[in-house]
Amino acid sequence: MANITRIEAGPRMSKAVVHGDTVYLAGIVADDNTQDVTGQTKQVLAEIDRLLALAGTDKSKLLRANIWITDMAQFGAMNAVWDAWVSPGNTPARATVQAALATPAYKVEIMVVAAK
Amino acid sequence: MANITRIEAGPRMSKAVVHGDTVYLAGIVADDNTQDVTGQTKQVLAEIDRLLALAGTDKSKLLRANIWITDMAQFGAMNAVWDAWVSPGNTPARATVQAALATPAYKVEIMVVAAK
Amino acid sequence: MANITRIEAGPRMSKAVVHGDTVYLAGIVADDNTQDVTGQTKQVLAEIDRLLALAGTDKSKLLRANIWITDMAQFGAMNAVWDAWVSPGNTPARATVQAALATPAYKVEIMVVAAK
Repeated sequence: MANITRIEAGPRMSKAVVHGDTVYLAGIVADDNTQDVTGQTKQVLAEIDRLLALAGTDKSKLLRANIWITDMAQFGAMNAVWDAWVSPGNTPARATVQAALATPAYKVEIMVVAAK
Repeated sequence: MANITRIEAGPRMSKAVVHGDTVYLAGIVADDNTQDVTGQTKQVLAEIDRLLALAGTDKSKLLRANIWITDMAQFGAMNAVWDAWVSPGNTPARATVQAALATPAYKVEIMVVAAK
Repeated sequence: MANITRIEAGPRMSKAVVHGDTVYLAGIVADDNTQDVTGQTKQVLAEIDRLLALAGTDKSKLLRANIWITDMAQFGAMNAVWDAWVSPGNTPARATVQAALATPAYKVEIMVVAAK
């Protein structure tokens, strides 16, 4: 079987898990959830960049993304940050739906799968 | 590492991403969202068939499916279309939950992973 | 291509699908949905243990988990059962969001991916 490497493994979840050449990231939310959806999305994507780097890969190898936002009225604001961040020509398969998150302060959560 | 091939890659997302022998499709919604959940589910599954074919595979190799419907009262109507579409004996691992989608006109969104 | 093995394949979905050394489980809910979120989470995790065993693996090889709960006020109760169940040092990448499930009696649904 392929090797499993866990990154920042806590008692509840790992921030990332590498299985062979596939990297699974946890659902990421903003550290500072007092910011609006624009600020929170920037924080989330920066954290995804950090975790992908720890896993030995980067956003140009994203395979799949699941995005949850708490208010679909903020879809455009989230997308503006997303569109500026993704690697041109290397966008993942993506789905975005509305859902309440762990606390009402969170406006967006993103969970990705990448290749390494 | 395994090769990555992106299908209908746009500036925001790709419709499908092939990584080695795993195919990740985007969350698919109906082009004509004036139809009811039955019509929309048929459209979504036809689009999934089209994308799987472009990726060199088909519904008999589905691995996993995530389904979001906007109103759980329409679960039976969605399932009737799904059950008639899936490849007998080759059904994927599946989960269906309720969620609001990008616009209220969308009644169903489906995101699958397949082997090729 | 890698081999596909389906476990408890029904006309709508399979309980688990093994593709190469990756195992995709269906979204699992409690058989007895009269129980509270604590009891339901225990049932769900026992069923995940059973399916992982049928697939030739176990919870120490979990890669990713998606959890849906119907009421975020029950997040702590679900987590207490989860935290006691996971394999220390081998926790998966995880995301939890709120969603209505197939019937209001269900309080929690969990869908995992594991290595074998």
